Amino acid sequence: MNDSLIYLDHAAATPLDERVLRVMQPYMTDQFYNPSSPYAPALAVRHDYEAAKDAIAHSIGGRGTELIMTAGATESINLAFAGIDGHVIIPEIEHHAVRAVAERYPHTYVPVDERGRVSPDHIAAAILPETELVSVALANNEIGTVQPLREIAAVIDHERQMRRSRGDVRPINLHTDASQGIGMLDVHVARLGVDMLTLNAGKVYGPKQVGALWVSPRVQMRPLVVGGGQERGLRSGTENVAGAIGFAEALRLSEKKRRGEAERLRDIRDAMQRHLTEQFPQAVISGHLKHRLPAILHISFPMIDAERVLFSLEARGVLVATGSACAANKGTRSHVLTAIGLTPEVADGSIRISLGRLSTPEQGDVATQIIREVVAAEYERMERR
Amino acid sequence: MNDSLIYLDHAAATPLDERVLRVMQPYMTDQFYNPSSPYAPALAVRHDYEAAKDAIAHSIGGRGTELIMTAGATESINLAFAGIDGHVIIPEIEHHAVRAVAERYPHTYVPVDERGRVSPDHIAAAILPETELVSVALANNEIGTVQPLREIAAVIDHERQMRRSRGDVRPINLHTDASQGIGMLDVHVARLGVDMLTLNAGKVYGPKQVGALWVSPRVQMRPLVVGGGQERGLRSGTENVAGAIGFAEALRLSEKKRRGEAERLRDIRDAMQRHLTEQFPQAVISGHLKHRLPAILHISFPMIDAERVLFSLEARGVLVATGSACAANKGTRSHVLTAIGLTPEVADGSIRISLGRLSTPEQGDVATQIIREVVAAEYERMERR
Repeated sequence: MNDSLIYLDHAAATPLDERVLRVMQPYMTDQFYNPSSPYAPALAVRHDYEAAKDAIAHSIGGRGTELIMTAGATESINLAFAGIDGHVIIPEIEHHAVRAVAERYPHTYVPVDERGRVSPDHIAAAILPETELVSVALANNEIGTVQPLREIAAVIDHERQMRRSRGDVRPINLHTDASQGIGMLDVHVARLGVDMLTLNAGKVYGPKQVGALWVSPRVQMRPLVVGGGQERGLRSGTENVAGAIGFAEALRLSEKKRRGEAERLRDIRDAMQRHLTEQFPQAVISGHLKHRLPAILHISFPMIDAERVLFSLEARGVLVATGSACAANKGTRSHVLTAIGLTPEVADGSIRISLGRLSTPEQGDVATQIIREVVAAEYERMERR
Repeated sequence: MNDSLIYLDHAAATPLDERVLRVMQPYMTDQFYNPSSPYAPALAVRHDYEAAKDAIAHSIGGRGTELIMTAGATESINLAFAGIDGHVIIPEIEHHAVRAVAERYPHTYVPVDERGRVSPDHIAAAILPETELVSVALANNEIGTVQPLREIAAVIDHERQMRRSRGDVRPINLHTDASQGIGMLDVHVARLGVDMLTLNAGKVYGPKQVGALWVSPRVQMRPLVVGGGQERGLRSGTENVAGAIGFAEALRLSEKKRRGEAERLRDIRDAMQRHLTEQFPQAVISGHLKHRLPAILHISFPMIDAERVLFSLEARGVLVATGSACAANKGTRSHVLTAIGLTPEVADGSIRISLGRLSTPEQGDVATQIIREVVAAEYERMERR
């Protein structure tokens, strides 16, 4: 990356950590064997692959045999839904990947409050006799709100017990996409109470197109991609050995520094938020003020055209996002901002700042100053008209 | 790889070419941006990604807009079937990935001759009014037989015209998995006459977990993985930029030397075949003697236990395959060898030698000598019993 750029879009993509690339490289070149081959060098590759899966699973409190490796979060999410025959429930603010899959089934969108939080009571009220899956992202990718998954899990568990007590065998499970939480929050399947959990290496300085779905042994799965029977028949295709090795190392590195890094980024984020809202008291901060990813700052400057702001910021070397970077979102207003009740004049003036390993306090200060100048110039331009 | 090893299993996996890794690396580290992001560095990544897709497509006579990038051949094959509502036809000797998908639909297996060739007449006879897809691998992964795709395409085209003439709008298309043919054969969608074509980077010294499905603009597709709407809505998930860049380079490198490399490997293969059949006149060579991949030698030593041979060969540094490396195949007899009529005593004594860039004439000679000694020792051991 060009050193003069200030990259504030870590929620869209993270660079591959060079230490991760280093552990992957032998499995791309020298240790390239097909893990299904019968000779010793291939068996060694198979062993290292399984060890990497164990490490990935352990980092979230699961076992390697409960993990299905995929080509990323989108595939993991699609796979989590593949075994469903009934009704599904998702919050209004879920990522496009979840919305697109959920809309293939009878589904209910549950509302969120103005901070983007889902109420466990709303989930409980939406459960139908034929509901089989509730899917709630651990943290929202646009505004950073962290959901009360444990409380939602308790609702699901209650329903499960009710069904059991009346002899109803229809399953009901809770899936979470934890792509945006890993490396920031405590992501542990038992503590969260989830039955399935989606992981994404590309958001934690790991390799792109590498993901996983953790599945509780209790859940009955169906494959999305069939063939040679890899991943216990649940995801066929030659295993991505280098990808799994890299993912395990990326998780190890991010977990090792998680608390310190989360605090470091929160400090930078909070300073940016303070300085921007001081200068622009009309600015709207979205997302929950307490339950929010420490690296995300979603700020709206009412009446401002965020696309113009983005363009001016980029000209001065500051890269941020407007709305979501999701391709499906182009040219439309973010469904997340609509769901939390932002008016169009506020929503259309929104930028999302997402910090990460490339971010320093100095960069935060420089970027804040540039944003202040750019936004002030935009307000002046509007007043002159 | 250990330099003392003689790797004769290129059909199972190929090492990533270091030149390919070199062009991929910038897109893993510095140029890591999400191609859907709106700022210039991300737009540059988007541009390079599309250029790589164009290059991949051009190498098979297609256009970049007709290509859907996937996580490998297995996903491409699953995607090729995703739009089907009717009946499908596949030869008996198709790869497990194709068999597993086909068996989700009403399907017909067509027989092959003792050389593993599919007859276009058998395809014609199997077509039902509700047949929507015929899927025939360009070359078989176990015995190397190359199929008469043009003639099969003519059959499909005739059926298509018949349907049109009677106002029947049900589509019928021809898909081929060209994973094993690329870098060896002329793979060109118009010359082959196919409507869909599966490609796999991991078999041509490109990155693992990177594949593509070329689709004629005429074919109506349905996605397998939904979400953000990438790949024209047909395969969602953040694009694998480095993977596409690497795949394009791998194809460029293999296409540049295709004819010379095919001849070079055919010479090594033919010498091995000659020397082995001279010593063991009872040995059975499978696959078509003319229409066969130049890099594949499938040889059966009747009454011999191939697993023991594999073990002894490995102890002397020679890595070959028995049957298919496909995970689903473990512990069962190859369906390919059964389909071409090999008796169990012949089939169970089979090894597959697959040559590639790591292979030299000297290695061929050394390996041949070792195989001769190992197989001779096995025959002697049997006689002593």
